[in-house]
Parts: sequence; C-alpha cells; structure tokens
Amino acid sequence: MLVTRLIERKRDGGRLEPAEWTALIRSYVAGDVSDSQMAAMLMAIYVHGLDRMETAALTDAMRRSGAQLSLAHLGGLRVDKHSTGGVGDKTSLILAPLVSSLGVAVPMMSGRGLGHTGGTLDKLESIPGMRTDLTLAKARAQVERIGCVVMGQSSEVVPADRGMYALRNATATAESVPLVASSIMSKKLAEDLTGLVLDVKRGSGSLVHDLDEALELAGTMVALGDANGCEVVALLTAMDRPLGRAIGNALEVEEAIHALSGEGPPDLMAVTYALGAEMLQLGGVAADADEARRRMEVAISSGQAARKLQEVIEAQGGNPGVVDDPAVLPQAGACELFEAPRRGFVARVEPRGIGRALVALGGGRAGPDDRIDPGVGFVITAKPGDWVELGEPVATIFARDDAGIATGRAALRSSIVIADEADHPLPLISHRVTMDGVTRAD
Amino acid sequence: MLVTRLIERKRDGGRLEPAEWTALIRSYVAGDVSDSQMAAMLMAIYVHGLDRMETAALTDAMRRSGAQLSLAHLGGLRVDKHSTGGVGDKTSLILAPLVSSLGVAVPMMSGRGLGHTGGTLDKLESIPGMRTDLTLAKARAQVERIGCVVMGQSSEVVPADRGMYALRNATATAESVPLVASSIMSKKLAEDLTGLVLDVKRGSGSLVHDLDEALELAGTMVALGDANGCEVVALLTAMDRPLGRAIGNALEVEEAIHALSGEGPPDLMAVTYALGAEMLQLGGVAADADEARRRMEVAISSGQAARKLQEVIEAQGGNPGVVDDPAVLPQAGACELFEAPRRGFVARVEPRGIGRALVALGGGRAGPDDRIDPGVGFVITAKPGDWVELGEPVATIFARDDAGIATGRAALRSSIVIADEADHPLPLISHRVTMDGVTRAD
Repeated sequence: MLVTRLIERKRDGGRLEPAEWTALIRSYVAGDVSDSQMAAMLMAIYVHGLDRMETAALTDAMRRSGAQLSLAHLGGLRVDKHSTGGVGDKTSLILAPLVSSLGVAVPMMSGRGLGHTGGTLDKLESIPGMRTDLTLAKARAQVERIGCVVMGQSSEVVPADRGMYALRNATATAESVPLVASSIMSKKLAEDLTGLVLDVKRGSGSLVHDLDEALELAGTMVALGDANGCEVVALLTAMDRPLGRAIGNALEVEEAIHALSGEGPPDLMAVTYALGAEMLQLGGVAADADEARRRMEVAISSGQAARKLQEVIEAQGGNPGVVDDPAVLPQAGACELFEAPRRGFVARVEPRGIGRALVALGGGRAGPDDRIDPGVGFVITAKPGDWVELGEPVATIFARDDAGIATGRAALRSSIVIADEADHPLPLISHRVTMDGVTRAD
Repeated sequence: MLVTRLIERKRDGGRLEPAEWTALIRSYVAGDVSDSQMAAMLMAIYVHGLDRMETAALTDAMRRSGAQLSLAHLGGLRVDKHSTGGVGDKTSLILAPLVSSLGVAVPMMSGRGLGHTGGTLDKLESIPGMRTDLTLAKARAQVERIGCVVMGQSSEVVPADRGMYALRNATATAESVPLVASSIMSKKLAEDLTGLVLDVKRGSGSLVHDLDEALELAGTMVALGDANGCEVVALLTAMDRPLGRAIGNALEVEEAIHALSGEGPPDLMAVTYALGAEMLQLGGVAADADEARRRMEVAISSGQAARKLQEVIEAQGGNPGVVDDPAVLPQAGACELFEAPRRGFVARVEPRGIGRALVALGGGRAGPDDRIDPGVGFVITAKPGDWVELGEPVATIFARDDAGIATGRAALRSSIVIADEADHPLPLISHRVTMDGVTRAD
C-alpha cells in the first residue's frame, strides 16, 4: 500500500475501500504510516467526510487493531452506556452500579477528561485507592464475579485510537462526525457488547453544536452498532448548561453517591433514569420504560445500587467507605459562596466556560499528561430559568487556595448570566434515535 | 499563539494574518508546532488554498526562518533561474556558467531530485570530487571571485522549508500552487537576487498538469518576487516529453557540456537560449532578446562559457577535466540500443514513466536518503512527431547490469508510444508571464 495514494484520494474527495482502511490502520499501528501522514489524512477526512460504508470500514479496522474483551461465554446480555462528553455529566458513575445491580452485565471502558469536558476515570480516581488501569483478563474476571467493571481503555484495546485521538486534539480535527463515531464505536464494539446506550450531548458545551449534526452522529453510531450485532439506542440530551450541580472530580463522585441514594438533583435523575431505562430494556430485564423506572427506584431505595458501587470500588482497590461517608474524598483547600451579582432570571449557565475554569483550577487537563487536583470545582445550584435575588447564593467555589477562588469567581461571573428575561434552554432529553429512526422524546 | 486555532480557521476556509503566518513558521522551526500539526495545516491549505496576501506572508515568514545570502555589496545585478522540475532538464547546468560568463552574477541554490524529476545537485555531483554542500560564507566568496556558484540549500537557509518539503511529499500535499510557490520563492528570495527567471513546466511530467494551473503558479511567483524587489520573468515550457536527449545524472552533465560547445539538441538549446535571454536582460547586459542570443552564441563559440563551467567545477572541488573529456564521468556497467518495436510516428515519449524508470535503475531517489547511481539512464533520440521504421534505434539504455537493462527496456516499451498518427505535443515555449501580464511566446 502506498499511503500517499490513499491520502491523495481522500484529499480529492474520493473514497477508500474497506481493505484500504484495514491496510491504513494496520500500517499506522505498525509505525509504517507516520503521525504526520495520519494527521493529513484526518484533515482530509474532516473536510470531505466519510460515507456510511467508509465509516463502518474505518471503525472495524480500528476495532481489530488490538485485543478485544470476550464475554460471550457469560451467556447473558452485556450493555454499556457512553456519553459524547459534557460538563457535570456523572451519569456513568450512577448507571454502572445501578444497572448491574439489576442483573445486566456492564463492562464499561471509559475515558479521561480532555478540553473542557470531564472524564469518568478521573472522577473515579478521586476515590482513595481506586484503580482503573485493569488488564483485560482482570476486567473479564471482575465482570464474571460482580457483573460490572469501570476501567480505562487498556493499551491492548484499539491501539489505533490512542494515536489518532491525540492527533485529532492536536490538529483541530476532533469534531468530525465520522471520526467521533469511529473513535467511540471502535472502543465500544471491542467490549463485546450486545447493547449500547449513547448519550449524545448537544448545545454549546458539547462536541457537536447543532441538532442536525447531533442526529447525524447518533444515526451513524446506531448504524455502526447494528452492522456489528450490537443494538444501539441514542438519546439526545442538553449540554447548553451543566448536568446536575457538581462540576469537579470528587464533587461529582459525591453527587453520584447522593443520586444512588435517591437524592440527586432532578435534571441529573431524569437523564439517569432515561438512559438507565434504555439499558435495562436492552439488557432484557425490563419490558418497557415504566417497568425499568420502577426497578431502578427499588434498587435505589433498597440500597442495592449503592452496595453494587461499593463492590465495584472494593474490587478495584478503592475505599468502599466512601459510599457511606463521602467525606473520605479529597477536599478543597478553600471554598467560597458565589452570590448573584444582580436580581433577575438565570439566562444561561455556560458549560464551556465552567469546564475551562475547572481546568484552570487544576481539576482538568490542558494536556494529556497533566495531573489533576481532585478536590477542586464548583457546585452550581442555579439553573437556567430560575429567578434569583441580588446577593442570593447561586454557587460554591472549591479551590486549592485564594488565587483559585479568584479564578473561579471570575469564571462564574462570566458563565452565569443573569438577565431581565429567561432564555430558552434546550429540552433536557429531546430525541431518541434507533435503527427504526428518530422520535422526539419531549 | 494556539496553533490549533490557526489550523481550525484554515480548516474552515478562513484566512490567517501575516503575524499569524510568522508565528506559525517560527514555532514550527522552534519545534513548538509538531510535524503532525504542520501536516494537518498543509492539507487544509491544499484543500482551501491561500489568497495572494497569505501566500506572500507565508513566503516571507519562511524566508526569514533562517540565514540569507547577502550580496548587495557586490553592486551588480544578481540573477538566478529555477525550474519547477522535469525529466531531462539540464538547463541550469548550462545557464549558470553561460550567463555568468557574460558578467551577470549567478548565485544558484538548487535542489535534489525527488519523485520522477531530476535535481541539479545530483547531476553536478556525478562529476568526480564536486561538492555542493557549501556554507553561505564560502558561496558568497565564490560569487565575489568568479561570479557563479551552484550549491545546495544549506541547512542555514529557509530551515522551515526543509521540514515542510519532506512533509508535503509524505502527505500528498506537494502539488498545491501556494505551497509550491512559497517553497520555491522563499529560497530564491533568500539568495538576495535582483532578478529571477522561472521555467514553469507543464504537461504530464510536471508538477502542474493544466495550463490554467501553470499560469496561476507563474503569476503567483512573479507577484511574490515583485513584492520583494526581485523582478521575475516566467516562461511556460513543455514537459509532456523529456527535454533534450539525455536522462540520468552523468549523461545529463555530458549533454550540458556538449550544449556549452554549441552541440546540444535543438529543443534543449531553444529552451536554454530563451531562459538565458531573459536572464541576460534582467542582468542588464543585453537590451533585448536578439542581443542576448548573439552574446550567448559568442560565449559558446569562443569557449568562454565552457571555461566558466571549468572554473565553477574547480572552485567546488570537482575535476575540471570533465569539460574537455566527459569520459571521466562515471560510466554505466551495461548498455543496449533500444529499437522501435514497429514503424510509425512517435506519438508520445512519456516523461513520468521515464523518470520513474530512472529511479528504478538507481539513478534517482525513491526516498530522500537513497543513494544515487550516477552512471545509469537513457539517451532517447526519438522525439514526438518523428517517423521511425521497425527496428530503427530510438534510444540507448545505460544500466548497472543486465537486470537493469531489462527494467529499462520494459519502461521504454511503455513510455515511447509509436502509432499510425502523430500526436500533438505541447509547444516547447508557450507563454511568458511578467508583472505586465501574460503573452503567448509561440
């Protein structure tokens, strides 16, 4: 294969055959295609796009670039959930124990935060002792034993994506539907799932900005799953404001623990239940959304879901005491209430600005090798549409020191917009996408 | 500067400001912008193009990325000639001594062959002892002393282009008008020229394929020169067949030596005289093309031009005896006549196929680090339009061994097309481009 010929064809808007995608990815992983050549290819893909067949071939080539989990011997159904990334989105932390406590195996491989979005692994690792760097063998054994694992993508799995993901971030080619879809789905399909629920975020804090693009991304991933024997349901949810109240690693773990006790904020619980209902139906333990909802409420009120979280934490070396006493989590050195600078309606709470502020406080990554301060972040109680009085507390800033508090204050001042009139936030859950098509969910 | 923001803007078809081009190139040379990021940027430039102002800013930033020759203290005019690359094009070897023998300083920085095109440096280095890796200080001293140097682009000059050139070849982004123009002109402007003659090749063996693109490239480079105080004249010449008869490094040096004695083939002499006439006018030693032509004929018939070549070779460590006795050049191990496989008109002599065959014989580079066998190549006497009889010799193959002869034979069989009717080759010299516009030259 002459890689320049393939780049040339995509550069000119042509298409590559499945065998060519396989050869490209294989050569890239072997080091025969350089990062520069892949970067040029990614830019050509960004500009000209890929058709559905090419996206499927690329995804398949990526998936087969490394080892894969094999769980079919378990006999039962395996369901995972994935979000395209947002601010304050801790639903994975809630759903993995909740759904697996109801008898569905959940082999969850998650990612780290990058840019303004948070990552499930970073959040989990704020629990003292918690490990997410499991081998495939260990992960498989854990799923067999307790039905759930939440781990990082090990270096064995989809090695092609590791380099491509870093390149996409460095070369402004991240936000491309076929590249996002192939990156997500190659990893999810390597988990040997029978079902997958996707939370496709839209709005200013998400990877995709408008509805059409979100629907295209959802449809692409649903089709990719279908072509590989994995039933996929995608929900489009709002990311024009943070989800829930907590933003920051330990703060989000704490909020997730509250949610597992039935005490999560309403928007977080609504998204959690909606995604969970899809997972339970795909997992074959609920016939419809109502039954699924009832079962989840029982799992929460009985303490069964919280106990499953303890099991997972204990299995991965963490301190399970955190579930009963979140105070064992790392704490911020300084905190301060943030008060409304005027009276009026909360018009907007900008997730991108808040996500970036979290990075500035040390709670996120500017580069892939940055270390994270788990204790810092925000708890924002005001939601778009709320009426607030001058001086009313609307948030709390958690920082390392006074300088961090000042940074956080400045960020909230520009990100929480109070005005004379309320704005129109996006519906929390707007669309449901399956192989049968798109239905409105609101 | 956040390089991803710049890539993003070009990716979306936007434009960069001059200060942004400067920052990009400076950061690239400093290693703060990676090859992958530059590769993505090059692809975005390839797809969306650059406007004239952006091309000028990029060229300027590249030129200022390293050291530059300074020759203004010489007082006189400094003229160079550059070709966009072809097969059998040895005019630089003839023009550098010819024009400098008439009193115009010629500080010539040339390139190496890559792909199917040959390079002046590789050809010169087939002369025993000849060095082309001169420092700027040495080059400057040589121009002061004998009025001419033919050297490689030293690592001090336009370091930005070194990496970008390699990237363009590896990522299928070489053949872009603004990238070709900025690469050529940044290096030429770093020679501190007052005048430059460009030979813009067109046809199947050239970098640009159609007339419009060739005219755009020529016009872009003429404007870049004008903006930097360097008068540029571009001639569009044919590269739908090799120029002259010899293709191969030592063989081309030999043909250039014959040409300096007035014995070059007609097409080679016509292009040489046309380019030389422009150089002499830009150099202020001839008022018009007729006068320039007469002076070149005298320089050749008097032996003055050939003696200048001897001086240049001697100054650069080579064996000047080669001018009187080309047999001191490396010779091929095997040679064989190639006879017309049928009677008819020579319809085409495909330069790209022949250039690739030269690489296959070891006389060119498949990669930038390949070593070259200087003795191998072809002498093709048949020209498009010629009538040939079955079995009539139309070429000679020079190779290392019998296997090479077989390779060469196969290449000529597919590259020299004999048919019942003659084809229509491109006019040898078709257009002349200056700041005054385009005039037809045929």
